[in-house]
Amino acid sequence: MVIAKARAVDGPDKPFRSAEIKRRDLDSYDVLIEIKFAGICHSDIHTAHGEWGPVNYPLVPGHEIAGIVTDVGAQVTKYKTGDRVGVGCMVDSCGECANCRKGEEQYCLKGNIQTYAGVDKYGEPTQGGYSTHIVVQEDFVLNIPDSIELDVAAPLLCAGITTYSPLNHWGARPGKKVAVVGMGGLGHMAVKIAHAMGAEVTVLSQTLNKMKDGLQFGADHYYATNNLETFKELSGCFDLIINTVSARIDIDAYFSLLTLDGTLVNVGAPGEPLSLNVMSLIGHRRSFAGSMIGGIRETQEMLDFCAKHNIVPKIEVISADQIDEAYERVLASDVKYRFVIDTSTM
Amino acid sequence: MVIAKARAVDGPDKPFRSAEIKRRDLDSYDVLIEIKFAGICHSDIHTAHGEWGPVNYPLVPGHEIAGIVTDVGAQVTKYKTGDRVGVGCMVDSCGECANCRKGEEQYCLKGNIQTYAGVDKYGEPTQGGYSTHIVVQEDFVLNIPDSIELDVAAPLLCAGITTYSPLNHWGARPGKKVAVVGMGGLGHMAVKIAHAMGAEVTVLSQTLNKMKDGLQFGADHYYATNNLETFKELSGCFDLIINTVSARIDIDAYFSLLTLDGTLVNVGAPGEPLSLNVMSLIGHRRSFAGSMIGGIRETQEMLDFCAKHNIVPKIEVISADQIDEAYERVLASDVKYRFVIDTSTM
Repeated sequence: MVIAKARAVDGPDKPFRSAEIKRRDLDSYDVLIEIKFAGICHSDIHTAHGEWGPVNYPLVPGHEIAGIVTDVGAQVTKYKTGDRVGVGCMVDSCGECANCRKGEEQYCLKGNIQTYAGVDKYGEPTQGGYSTHIVVQEDFVLNIPDSIELDVAAPLLCAGITTYSPLNHWGARPGKKVAVVGMGGLGHMAVKIAHAMGAEVTVLSQTLNKMKDGLQFGADHYYATNNLETFKELSGCFDLIINTVSARIDIDAYFSLLTLDGTLVNVGAPGEPLSLNVMSLIGHRRSFAGSMIGGIRETQEMLDFCAKHNIVPKIEVISADQIDEAYERVLASDVKYRFVIDTSTM
Repeated sequence: MVIAKARAVDGPDKPFRSAEIKRRDLDSYDVLIEIKFAGICHSDIHTAHGEWGPVNYPLVPGHEIAGIVTDVGAQVTKYKTGDRVGVGCMVDSCGECANCRKGEEQYCLKGNIQTYAGVDKYGEPTQGGYSTHIVVQEDFVLNIPDSIELDVAAPLLCAGITTYSPLNHWGARPGKKVAVVGMGGLGHMAVKIAHAMGAEVTVLSQTLNKMKDGLQFGADHYYATNNLETFKELSGCFDLIINTVSARIDIDAYFSLLTLDGTLVNVGAPGEPLSLNVMSLIGHRRSFAGSMIGGIRETQEMLDFCAKHNIVPKIEVISADQIDEAYERVLASDVKYRFVIDTSTM
């Protein structure tokens, strides 16, 4: 058994504190990873604050994990000591249901095992990447291509795949007009990936404050949604809109920006129900869809795609002592564009 | 100019009365149709009652029209006197926009001209099928196959195409599980068409009252939605759900019946905004879409498909004096499954 250093919270309003957590002895197919970097995702904050349902505290969040393999179980074939690897939002699934068999483990019909705030197959609570080590069975470990540094690799494991998967699934490619709503951690990755896929990319952000960055990331156009003219000018324009904003928005206004047969995909989940006018969809056979991370095979495909196209997130590396402050800054949208914890500071 | 006998309403709460309306002289590409039968669609009632916005009364509703060509304009090539023809929800469109060029005139970017309560290209208000004659330019006239009687042909022009189009677009076929919500005018057509397309068809109706009919129309299964067990038993079951109900329903409960990548298509438009939980979509990459009638080419395809598969609606033929009563019975869901006016009684 490995005792990992970690940062944990004890309740919805509690600050992070130093903690020690036990990582299980390696089972036959397990990989022990020394975590080097862990990204901070908005989901971590929702969960730490208990906003997505009851949580068994203490909780160690973190599902954007990059590190080095330091030991492997007896039957492991995919990884060896020294390999550069990543772990995302899930660490196991049933492996037998129709969705798992399709390689869509994120939609496991029995419910996949989440990296933190879950219960593993041994009945133990799972704890995430704000720690120095983690044990994960090899099928849920990703290979990080050599050209991607570990600090910038970490956010790809959630922000990267969460945007890559719908762009891939709904066919972002040359000739397609894609809009990205929100220029945060997910949004800036969506811009880079959609651009690399060859689509014409438009950012729809509240203001033009991050316009320079957006264009640098590969956006062809950048509009402020606090300007109502935007919605007139872009009416019926887009084949695909990726909405990365989980706050409630006037979704009908965004539907009006879709062309015939266009799709708006939410990758952010508002905490409250959303109200929409069905005529907004009927009018041009539009679709409103949701998408959640991606399967393991597709996550590897995303990492290889990012390596090929030199895509990495823009990050700010912080020490373990800065997590609380980072949470506050994420909530204030004061992050460009992802905080990544250097776990050597644990 | 032809003076047609018609039935018109003078206001939201007024009964139908006899009226005479002028049909324009034939322009080069116009077809004069002697209407034999006109279906009563729920949209007629919404419009007549002013529920879908202001209406210029007097109004002659009716967009499920079947009749015989009695005269044609000088340049008409598609039809001749004596032809059996139909007219649906639209009588013209711009013909030039991207959607019209794709044959999706129902989504004309300039707005197609609706069969009634619209304004035609001469600036005159359009009046619908509750009348003895209508003049329509040939591109918006459909050929009714010989094997389909005119009385049962009429409802195909709206109820038929409104359900055929999404079933066709979202790929109802052997191996696909399709659910139809609601067993009214649209629902019973959806069952027949989806069955003929080879899909496994399930009806989701409030009660089991119409079960015998549903199975006879081709449904493989029939469930009552007033029984909560239905939603447990059918969880994650369907590739496609066609919702023909325009009343507000607990849409999240219906999303839960979709499989991975499944789509729920609304063909009914609730008057009020609808509330949904985005997680219902994100959970299994589900889509919520809307669809509106079909293009002219697809409408002809639908008529030919119905002829080939011996599909016609189950109707109740009424006289012109019975329209008010029929409206009341539609609102009380007391119709099996479509009222059709015999216009010889005008």
